[in-house]
Amino acid sequence: MADHQNNWLFEQLMKTYDLKFEGDGISGQRIAKRLNALANIGKTAENGSNRSGYSEAEAHAQKLVASWMKQAGLNVREDGAGNIIGRLAGKEDTLPVIMSGSHVDSVPNGGHFDGTLGVIAALEVVEAWNTQGYQPIKPYEVVIFADEEGSRFNGGLNGSEAMVGNHVIERKKQLQDKDGLKFAEVLQMRGLSVESYQNAARDMKEIELFVELHIEQGKILEKENVPCGIVTGIAGPCWLEITFIGEAGHAGNTPMNDRKDALVAASELVWKVNQLPSQVSDSAVATIGKQIVEPNGVNVIPGKVTLYVDIRDIYEKTRDELMELVKQLAGDIAAKHGMAVNIMEKTKVKPVPINNNIQDLLETAMKKHRIRPLRLPSGAGHDAMIIGEKVPIAMLFVKSRKGISHNPEEWSDLTDCVQAIQVLKTSIENLQSDEVTSGVFK
Amino acid sequence: MADHQNNWLFEQLMKTYDLKFEGDGISGQRIAKRLNALANIGKTAENGSNRSGYSEAEAHAQKLVASWMKQAGLNVREDGAGNIIGRLAGKEDTLPVIMSGSHVDSVPNGGHFDGTLGVIAALEVVEAWNTQGYQPIKPYEVVIFADEEGSRFNGGLNGSEAMVGNHVIERKKQLQDKDGLKFAEVLQMRGLSVESYQNAARDMKEIELFVELHIEQGKILEKENVPCGIVTGIAGPCWLEITFIGEAGHAGNTPMNDRKDALVAASELVWKVNQLPSQVSDSAVATIGKQIVEPNGVNVIPGKVTLYVDIRDIYEKTRDELMELVKQLAGDIAAKHGMAVNIMEKTKVKPVPINNNIQDLLETAMKKHRIRPLRLPSGAGHDAMIIGEKVPIAMLFVKSRKGISHNPEEWSDLTDCVQAIQVLKTSIENLQSDEVTSGVFK
Repeated sequence: MADHQNNWLFEQLMKTYDLKFEGDGISGQRIAKRLNALANIGKTAENGSNRSGYSEAEAHAQKLVASWMKQAGLNVREDGAGNIIGRLAGKEDTLPVIMSGSHVDSVPNGGHFDGTLGVIAALEVVEAWNTQGYQPIKPYEVVIFADEEGSRFNGGLNGSEAMVGNHVIERKKQLQDKDGLKFAEVLQMRGLSVESYQNAARDMKEIELFVELHIEQGKILEKENVPCGIVTGIAGPCWLEITFIGEAGHAGNTPMNDRKDALVAASELVWKVNQLPSQVSDSAVATIGKQIVEPNGVNVIPGKVTLYVDIRDIYEKTRDELMELVKQLAGDIAAKHGMAVNIMEKTKVKPVPINNNIQDLLETAMKKHRIRPLRLPSGAGHDAMIIGEKVPIAMLFVKSRKGISHNPEEWSDLTDCVQAIQVLKTSIENLQSDEVTSGVFK
Repeated sequence: MADHQNNWLFEQLMKTYDLKFEGDGISGQRIAKRLNALANIGKTAENGSNRSGYSEAEAHAQKLVASWMKQAGLNVREDGAGNIIGRLAGKEDTLPVIMSGSHVDSVPNGGHFDGTLGVIAALEVVEAWNTQGYQPIKPYEVVIFADEEGSRFNGGLNGSEAMVGNHVIERKKQLQDKDGLKFAEVLQMRGLSVESYQNAARDMKEIELFVELHIEQGKILEKENVPCGIVTGIAGPCWLEITFIGEAGHAGNTPMNDRKDALVAASELVWKVNQLPSQVSDSAVATIGKQIVEPNGVNVIPGKVTLYVDIRDIYEKTRDELMELVKQLAGDIAAKHGMAVNIMEKTKVKPVPINNNIQDLLETAMKKHRIRPLRLPSGAGHDAMIIGEKVPIAMLFVKSRKGISHNPEEWSDLTDCVQAIQVLKTSIENLQSDEVTSGVFK
């Protein structure tokens, strides 16, 4: 019974596995067992995962994967930022490395696929090679990035940022978690330090390509009914804080033509912003997810409304174009209503478009496995976005059920996972010949 | 110095008094002194008034006014609901009474004119008559209604409702204040009871007309630059709670054409509702003052938005027409976006239009005093709204500075107050002749 309870995810996964997709040395059962084992670390009462960055639970999950890495013959090390790297020597081991992986930390009460699937997938490629007696020409590394989700410090990607070395250490030092623990203290509890974190910066020329497999966390692949898809780029979000300052007043005693209703102005903006993204690109999105009305009384005309516009695109040019359109619209609406408006940029992350040749590399592999090569943008940030600042990246999305993520309901069918890992493996193998290497990153 | 501090409101009022308007037996200085005296009862640190309904402070203020009533020769009684009534015998004392007054309770940290000015004005008419040696033919009553604002039980007009007797006592008994005191307990602390409250119901045939002088709490009179105005009716509010149920989703991973964004739907409603009132009447207003976005995260597409529409007009027909238009619009918008919407009526108070002949009575008086007779609706509720369910009412608004009310900044210039009281006095005197009486309420 206890065993049955511990195997819940394994059993569910196996129900979504069509054995006819087994092959190429990849084992659906092993993947399901490993996903199941990680899901039992930090499991919540609601059957979710709770492994915040730099927590005991994350360390526990990392150690378990590290033990699998060692069993698979990888040379395992931990860097000064808590990233775990398992290296398989290449036949020509001085060549730049092909790296794959993701993270094993989670949001509070998160799911069991976000991050973990990418780590297990990268390792499964090695397991398959071991079965097939294959050794790549180029060295291959499986990586577990620390603290991707940022649920501890309300700002993640700490592991990948350390590896790239493209961060401001003074800002990191100011981070504090909800228990009041500072960044340095949290690192210390893991046997790390601010100094070791800084020393984790790697010479990124050692890496030829980072390829991350990740669940989509969206509904496009499900709608298109394909197991996996090729990511065209990672959208960099830009957040605008827009505040309309009208005039509060009595809802009964102020005639309609003598109002400066901040919510009417804000609502005009929300409604019209929804129609803007398609003007700049197919992949652009704009969302007003948060809005604060003041004083927020039923019988008081709103005097002030603050809203946040989340603007994303995989191309910086069109993302910034959309941002300017939103700003201009907000200004025009405020002017029309005769009220003041404040606009502030709160966040602005550079989008990371993915090289077309690299997308083609994945497409070739997908065609071999008879998968329709659908391309789609990534609206969410990933470790690959950080690594992509310095070296070429590829991303492969796996179909998510109903697009649900950061939730115990998060799900991907095992057949889809296995197919995606086959694509990952073939893509990496196709990168071993000199010809592909020389052509692909031009 | 202490005296200077205690006289702050008096001194400020006298600075806004043009002595050339003194006359007709009405004393600006007496009015200022009395407003000042009431303002010092329950005065807050921010110089506001804090006299919640059925509080010690309200009782203190009532007793002070009652002492002035007695000095002016009125026969003073308290009814079972805590209303104070001071009666001046008429030459024909069996005739129905002309009643005037308002309330002396306040919202927390409220102003010094809302209610109190109406009570002092009604009494000032008697003071002026005393000076002039005038006795009206009809009996005249000055009334202080208890607990108009409703800041104790989150629902006011308890004094006037008791007098009219048009209430559900079981509902009153369930009222509880923020300290957990029940309605019955609160009454008991004032030497009253639920039984006495019920017995306060009066034979409303005893009353010929209730006329209430009150500050406008709006900006129309200030804009039109007139000291006072004739109220055309009291708008009954109707509150609709409207909930759009869309689908939450990731702001980055959900394409624009695959969203059910509840805030986009809600915003379309807010924007369009703003344009509806003018379609039904000049006096109708509709306000969305409160809106709750869920989950209200910057990077999450809103899955649910609840908003409250406050709809008012002085005519029930057009108010209800507007309500139906809003409901229909909400349904149409939800259908267009393919999402569900829940609509609930939370409050529906009958508007009280004011008889045109009674408005003319005030107009005649205003013309005598060379005041441009501007007519305007009352968007806010008043004791007159309750009394108006049973007997004819009149209302006279006094210019408010910037429309500010329920706030220590609430202000009306003393010259405006004096002019309005002159209009009140003349109107009541004009009601004494049989001819006017017989014609006016047809």
